Parts: sequence; C-alpha cells; structure tokens
Amino acid sequence: MITVNARATFSPEGPFKLTTIERRELQPHDVLIEIKYSGICHSDIHTARGEWGPVNYPLVPGHEIAGIVTRVGSAVRKFAVGDRVGVGCMVDSCRECANCHKGEEQYCLNGMTGTYAATDRYGQYTQGGYSSQIVVTEDFVVRIPNGMELDVAAPLLCAGITTYSPLRHWGAGPGKKIAVVGLGGLGHLAVKLAHAMGAELTVLSQSLKKKEDGLKLGADHYYATSDPETFKQLAGSFDLIINTVSAKIDMSAYLSLLALDGTLVNVGAPAEPLSVNVFTLIGHRRSFAGSMIGGIRETQEMLDFCAEHGIVPEIEVISANQIDEAWERVLASDVRYRFVIDISTMEKE
Amino acid sequence: MITVNARATFSPEGPFKLTTIERRELQPHDVLIEIKYSGICHSDIHTARGEWGPVNYPLVPGHEIAGIVTRVGSAVRKFAVGDRVGVGCMVDSCRECANCHKGEEQYCLNGMTGTYAATDRYGQYTQGGYSSQIVVTEDFVVRIPNGMELDVAAPLLCAGITTYSPLRHWGAGPGKKIAVVGLGGLGHLAVKLAHAMGAELTVLSQSLKKKEDGLKLGADHYYATSDPETFKQLAGSFDLIINTVSAKIDMSAYLSLLALDGTLVNVGAPAEPLSVNVFTLIGHRRSFAGSMIGGIRETQEMLDFCAEHGIVPEIEVISANQIDEAWERVLASDVRYRFVIDISTMEKE
Repeated sequence: MITVNARATFSPEGPFKLTTIERRELQPHDVLIEIKYSGICHSDIHTARGEWGPVNYPLVPGHEIAGIVTRVGSAVRKFAVGDRVGVGCMVDSCRECANCHKGEEQYCLNGMTGTYAATDRYGQYTQGGYSSQIVVTEDFVVRIPNGMELDVAAPLLCAGITTYSPLRHWGAGPGKKIAVVGLGGLGHLAVKLAHAMGAELTVLSQSLKKKEDGLKLGADHYYATSDPETFKQLAGSFDLIINTVSAKIDMSAYLSLLALDGTLVNVGAPAEPLSVNVFTLIGHRRSFAGSMIGGIRETQEMLDFCAEHGIVPEIEVISANQIDEAWERVLASDVRYRFVIDISTMEKE
Repeated sequence: MITVNARATFSPEGPFKLTTIERRELQPHDVLIEIKYSGICHSDIHTARGEWGPVNYPLVPGHEIAGIVTRVGSAVRKFAVGDRVGVGCMVDSCRECANCHKGEEQYCLNGMTGTYAATDRYGQYTQGGYSSQIVVTEDFVVRIPNGMELDVAAPLLCAGITTYSPLRHWGAGPGKKIAVVGLGGLGHLAVKLAHAMGAELTVLSQSLKKKEDGLKLGADHYYATSDPETFKQLAGSFDLIINTVSAKIDMSAYLSLLALDGTLVNVGAPAEPLSVNVFTLIGHRRSFAGSMIGGIRETQEMLDFCAEHGIVPEIEVISANQIDEAWERVLASDVRYRFVIDISTMEKE
C-alpha cells in the first residue's frame, strides 16, 4: 500500500481534516499520479452528505483531478513519468459489456467505478482527488493537452465533459438554438462549449446578476427565469436545453420552451423526482432526457477541443484548508465559477 | 348551413341524445362526407367530460371517421364523389408555420383545429364523427386504400396514426427491441404495426389476461406489470417503449426498462403530471418523450402501410344508441379492442 495525504470528511456534517489514506500498490497497468489540482464539484457535497445514498467515512471527495505521472506499472503503454494527466469521475469499468465496448464506460452495465465512494475491482473503497496522490489504471487516465494549465484543466474532467457530451450527442452546432439553465460551474462551461460549437446560445438564469458575465462567456441572449415574461416570450424556442440546475425546478415550464422535437437534458440530478406535464411533451414531440459525464475517449476529445478553442473554466484557486468554506459558498452559489484546490497546500493548517 | 343528424352529449355526465347540428356550406376546397363509421377513442371521453379543459355543449365527439364523398367544392382537386375517405383528429391548421410546412400539421404553431370541441377558422365550433355527415377541407382528408373496409379503417385515423408515427420517428425496425405498455385500442395496433415493421416486440400489460391475444396480434413476449419480477427481469432492455396508458403510472419504473439511449414515448395523456426520477434518465441517457397523432401525409402513409401489410384493428361494431354503454366499457377496459359506431343506425332509438 502507498500511504498518501488527504483531506477527508469524517461525517456528513464535516469538517474536513488532514489525514492519510492508502492507495493500492501499482498493478501492471496502473499509473501513480501526483495530484496538483482538484476541482470542487457540487456532487462532492451531495455525495459526502449522504444525499445520494449512504457512504463510508472518512471520505475523500474529488473527481476533477489534474497532475503529473510519477511512476508507472510494468505494462503501462500510454503514459510515462512526467506526463501531464487528468482523472475524472470514474477510475474503472467492466470493459466487457456492450456499453463499455461502445466507449460509453460511464454507462457500464456492470457499474463503472466512481473515483470516490465506490468499491473498486480490488475490493477497496475509492477515495478521490482531495489528496496528494492517486493510483489509476491507465485506460481511465486522459492526457492534458500542451499549453493547458493544470489548474484550469481540472474542472474540465467533470464539469467540462458533463456539458460537452450532451451538446455533442444532441447535435449542438450552427443553426441550433440552445439554452443553458443555470450559470454555475457546469453552466458557464456549457456556454463556452456551445458557443465554440457555433450554436446560438441563451442563458436562463434566476436573475440578471451574472448577465454581463454570461455575454462575455459567449452567450447571445440572457434571460431571468424569475420573470414570468421569459417563459411567454421564449415558448417553443429551443432545439436543446441543457439544465445544469440540480435543484427541483418547474420542469414543465422549461419543457414548454422547446421547439418541435426539442430535448431538455438534465445533467444535474435533484434527489427528489421532478413532475412532468405529459401534455407539454406531447404537444411538440418534446423529450426530457438525462446525461452523465462522457466516456474516456470522449473526455480526451473534449480536452483537445478545449485546447484547440482556448476554452478553460473560470476558477478560484483555494488552499486545502478552505474546503469547508468553499463548500458553503458553492451551496450559496457564491463562486465564479469553480473552486480548484491547490494540492500543494494539502498539509497547511 | 347543412343540417345533419348527430349524437351529442349535453353535459359532462351525458347521456347521448339524437339531435341535429349545422355543418358549414361547402367552400371551394371542401368535401362533404357521408359518415359510415366512427370509432370511439378514450380521448372522446376525457374531452366530453371536461377532464382536459372546458368544452361547449351539446358536444359531438368522434375523430376516427370513415365515409364516402357525396359532394365536392368547386376547387377540390384531390377527391371526387364516391371516393372512400377518412378524417382523423384534425380538420385544419394554419398551413403557414414552420411545422405545417414540414407536414407536421398536428404541431401547428398557431394551433391545429381539432375535429371536435375546437373553434375553426370560420369561427364555428367543431363537431365530430358521431354524426351522419361532415364538411372538411380536402387537405385534411385522406384516402382509404382499396380493399380496406370502412369499419376497420376508422380506428386507424387516430389509434393507428398515434402509434405509427412514434414507431417511425424513433426508428422501429429489425434489431430494435420495443415494448408496448397497455393492450387496448392504441396498444393492440402498436403491436401489429411494430411487428410488421420487423421489431422484436414485448407487451407490458397489467395482467396476463390478454396474453394469448397479444401473442396472436404479433407480440414476441408478454409480461404482467403487476408482477414486480417483470421490472427486475427486463431492466435496461428496450430501445423504445410506447406507453399507451393514459392513467398515472410509475413512470420511473418503466423508464428503468430502457437501454442506453432508449426512449419512452407517451401517447396517452394523463391529466395529472407524472413524477420522474432524474437519476433513472441520467443513468443510461434515457429520454421521456411525448407524441401526438401524425401529420396528414404520414396518416396517408400509415393507411397505405396497413393496407400493404393487412393490418386492421380488432373492432366491435355498435349502434348509435349504444354509445353510453360503450363508453362505460371503455373506462372498464372491457373492449377488444375498439368500438366503432355504425352511423347507419344514427336515428335508431
């Protein structure tokens, strides 16, 4: 076992404390990564607080990991010591099912292995990126393109691929009218990505507070959803809506904004079920869909796309001792737009 | 005005009574149809009882109409006296919007005109097929293929197109696994159509009571949804599910039966919203969609497909004085599988 430093929460309520955890010894296809930056995702909070089901403590969240390869297993072919790499929301899958064969490992029929709070194929409970080092099988590691800094690369591994994948899957591009609901960590990347893909982009945010930001990020239009006029004015407008809000919202109101054959894709996951008016779906052959991250091949494609188009998230880098405070600010929507932990501060009190 | 016989309900509670209603004088593009048969659709009941919103009384339902052209307007090109024709759920649309131009008049952006309980472009309240004659503009009339009897043609105009259209839209065919929820008026046609399209077909019915029927109609498999094992056994199985049940069902349980990228399409419309677990959608990039009848061009295509493949609904022909009783039997699911009114009995007490 390899003993590494980590910041863990010891109960649903926290707080985070410095501790050590064990990583497995390198297997032939494993790489050891020195983590440089780890993003903070809203789902870290949902998971660690047990809102998505019971978890074990101590728990080390973090699935937006960017770092450097420091050691490789005997059979590793894809990476060498010194490579700049990333790890996202999953660290393994069965690799044998139909979905894995399609490169959609996130939908592995035998269950992909989450980067944290999951039991891996070695029987070990996985621990995430709020940590100094991690061991991952090479097939679940991606390359961070030259010229992309590691701090901004980190949030792309979850927030980036979570929005990139549905935009690609549902054909975002020139001539398509797309709306993004929520201008947070996911939303602001969805705006940048959809804009780079050539779509006409509208942000639907609770208020107009971030309007200036939204337009700068690449949105063509910006509306406040607190204004009922918005729903009247935009009825039947969009080919695709990416809903990044994981709170319970009035889904039928948003669905009514779709044009014929339009799809609203939830990438956020509220714990409670959402209520859908079937007439709204039937009226224009609309669809309500969900999408979860993306496959490994697509994650690499997304990083390369971002490098090519100069897309990086807007981030606020914090020290490891600021995680609790950052979580509170995430819950208060007080972040523009993603917190990233500087892992070099791991031991700082 | 043309005075015609009709069976109308004078209140949400009924009963039906013989009465007369006025049809407009033939405009240049109108045809006058002597109605021979009119199907009874579950939505007739929802509408007439005000469950989908307020309606005017007396109300004459019926949007599965088969008959003979007896007179044509001066500019009619498509039909001649003596032609065997059908009219479905709509009798007009704006014909100018993007959706009408695509041939998807059912999704007319300015609102298609329902065959009954709608105000038409002449300002007249529309009255449906439980009537001896109807005047319809030729563009909303379809031709009943040679060799297809008028009594069995009638239900195709709503139940047929309502199931045919989503099967086509979502690519039913060889290699596709499809489930049909509910083996009623719509469901039994969905089974016949999907079978003819070459899909592998499963019926999901409350009990196994109609299993023998279902297999005869073309289903490959038949499961009872009252058995919780069904949901375990079939989890993640289907590319497409056509839900014909318009009651409130446990949507998330049915969505969990979809494979990666599968779609559940509601063609029934429960008055209450349905509750959807977003995790179920996200887990396999599933979609929950709705679909409403089909365009006029597609309705003709459906009739021709049915004629080619020898598809007709299973019907029970009733007299006009049996409508109230038939409605009660529809509500009790006591019909195999569609009631059709023999309009020649209109005046019979």
